[in-house]
Amino acid sequence: MDKKIIGIDLGGTTVKFAILTSEGEIQQKWSIDTNILDEGSHIVPEIVASINHRLELYGLQPEAFIGIGMGTPGSVDRDKGTVIGAYNLNWKTLQPVKELIEKGTKIPFAIDNDANVAALGERWKGAGDNNPDVIFITLGTGVGGGIIMEGQLLHGVAGCAGEIGHITVDPEGFECTCGKRGCLETVSSATGVVRVARQLAEEYAGDSALKQQLDNGEDVSSKDIFEAAQANDPFGLMVVDKVCFYLGLACGNLGNTLNPSSIVLGGGVSAAGEFLRERVAAYFAQFTFPQVTESTEIKLAELGNDAGVIGAASLALQFAAKA
Amino acid sequence: MDKKIIGIDLGGTTVKFAILTSEGEIQQKWSIDTNILDEGSHIVPEIVASINHRLELYGLQPEAFIGIGMGTPGSVDRDKGTVIGAYNLNWKTLQPVKELIEKGTKIPFAIDNDANVAALGERWKGAGDNNPDVIFITLGTGVGGGIIMEGQLLHGVAGCAGEIGHITVDPEGFECTCGKRGCLETVSSATGVVRVARQLAEEYAGDSALKQQLDNGEDVSSKDIFEAAQANDPFGLMVVDKVCFYLGLACGNLGNTLNPSSIVLGGGVSAAGEFLRERVAAYFAQFTFPQVTESTEIKLAELGNDAGVIGAASLALQFAAKA
Repeated sequence: MDKKIIGIDLGGTTVKFAILTSEGEIQQKWSIDTNILDEGSHIVPEIVASINHRLELYGLQPEAFIGIGMGTPGSVDRDKGTVIGAYNLNWKTLQPVKELIEKGTKIPFAIDNDANVAALGERWKGAGDNNPDVIFITLGTGVGGGIIMEGQLLHGVAGCAGEIGHITVDPEGFECTCGKRGCLETVSSATGVVRVARQLAEEYAGDSALKQQLDNGEDVSSKDIFEAAQANDPFGLMVVDKVCFYLGLACGNLGNTLNPSSIVLGGGVSAAGEFLRERVAAYFAQFTFPQVTESTEIKLAELGNDAGVIGAASLALQFAAKA
Repeated sequence: MDKKIIGIDLGGTTVKFAILTSEGEIQQKWSIDTNILDEGSHIVPEIVASINHRLELYGLQPEAFIGIGMGTPGSVDRDKGTVIGAYNLNWKTLQPVKELIEKGTKIPFAIDNDANVAALGERWKGAGDNNPDVIFITLGTGVGGGIIMEGQLLHGVAGCAGEIGHITVDPEGFECTCGKRGCLETVSSATGVVRVARQLAEEYAGDSALKQQLDNGEDVSSKDIFEAAQANDPFGLMVVDKVCFYLGLACGNLGNTLNPSSIVLGGGVSAAGEFLRERVAAYFAQFTFPQVTESTEIKLAELGNDAGVIGAASLALQFAAKA
């Protein structure tokens, strides 16, 4: 029997698990609630118990597995397998995740941050078509990403490679939580889209139901804005155009410097689908030189919530290949 | 006896050669004129003859060498070892460089484009301190570069990775030869610096010898502008500040997305030295988030004209390791 892989996607609300083949096909999926009580001290023991319970259920031994891979929030030391500063897990101090999971399951364990791991997933089994050069951007509450070049996930000297949300797209733009100005995240995360709308509303004088909602102080979401635009609200279209301008500029410069086969857009804001993609691609074409415009594609993510567990499995596979 | 490496830096005026140890120490250097007559058809045969002549001179056999590496202008097919479109060599049609050099010298041969090869050189024996993540930017007649991450030179799907000169630093900026607007090259190459000066001169009203020279239609070079700025010409300082703003923005976004240990500035414009570096570094700090500001350094190139032959030797070494 071919050996299997366990992929784990650790989030602030749930921990998703999957057992996958070495080809990346999901065979079993399950999840547990993330128990962040007591400084998140129950999280790793509950992950270990859940894995062992499943193995027992299916009558599988640790030897049946190539490894376990996991994506996590926070700062990761990949070699030591530790995590620190994952605030949505209440992990403020250093967590020896690898040590505890390997001890508890007897299966080799590899870990990386969640955006990098999702990038590995989309590259392997999603929109990246298993190409060696793929960039993944997740447009959610924040904007994150992962960069895979020549088949390798890039980390950089301090692990900050792939922090696509902090590309400066407007030197005089909005202040960002990171301390600088004009980060992509300030204008293309879910809250960023609303921020752009509020700014443009100040000077927009035409007729627009969306603009009225904003002026009335109603709660408007990124989803509302994209829906208004798709229903041809002229102000909504203006906001979406501005957001796509910034995304196209950031993607363009990633294309000009890295020339991946694809830049994949995922996360909640990308639910706008082709409506978003085609507008980003148009600005991307404007901001790239011809060979890049022709060879680098802007694509939509394909794996949805499974990107994490699939990418985690890919991480385990790469770790095993190096060991 | 340890095996040696031959590094070749092929340029439009001269071909530089070096024999290096496997540690990257140059033992011998020589050069020949580049003979671009007859569609550049003499170039490769003359390279072969020059190598064989040297080997004979030193009583060395082909077996004494790990390999030959070469940096070249034009579009390179690294696997096939061919070059096309190197216009300063008169190479308009496909040149089977690897085939001819391996046949003529009996030594394994590897080739890549000149900016990538110079990046390998600076990374190995220059400002890059042999770190796994180093970006090199050459500020010359044009602006080029090379990106090394996780110890690997990045190429991208169509070989355009590292085209740092075409990062868009101003969406409404000057037209570039590549067809788009606001490329870093249009404002930070040797001609770009002068272009920025001419634009700013239109609105500058203060006293400045440099501004007068421009207004008088005198021939002003990038070097003149940096010299005026270093002599405290207020207009010169304003031009240099603008150029460094654009360089800091481009370097900042390279830092935010790749987080290399260093971004190394080379080429003619970088002759301004620390005066340039410290200004670029100040804008870099403004355009990067704290972890990148702290971990990625802006440095000056250290190898000068030797970057090419040293990088070519590094290329030969990597090629031999993979073979």
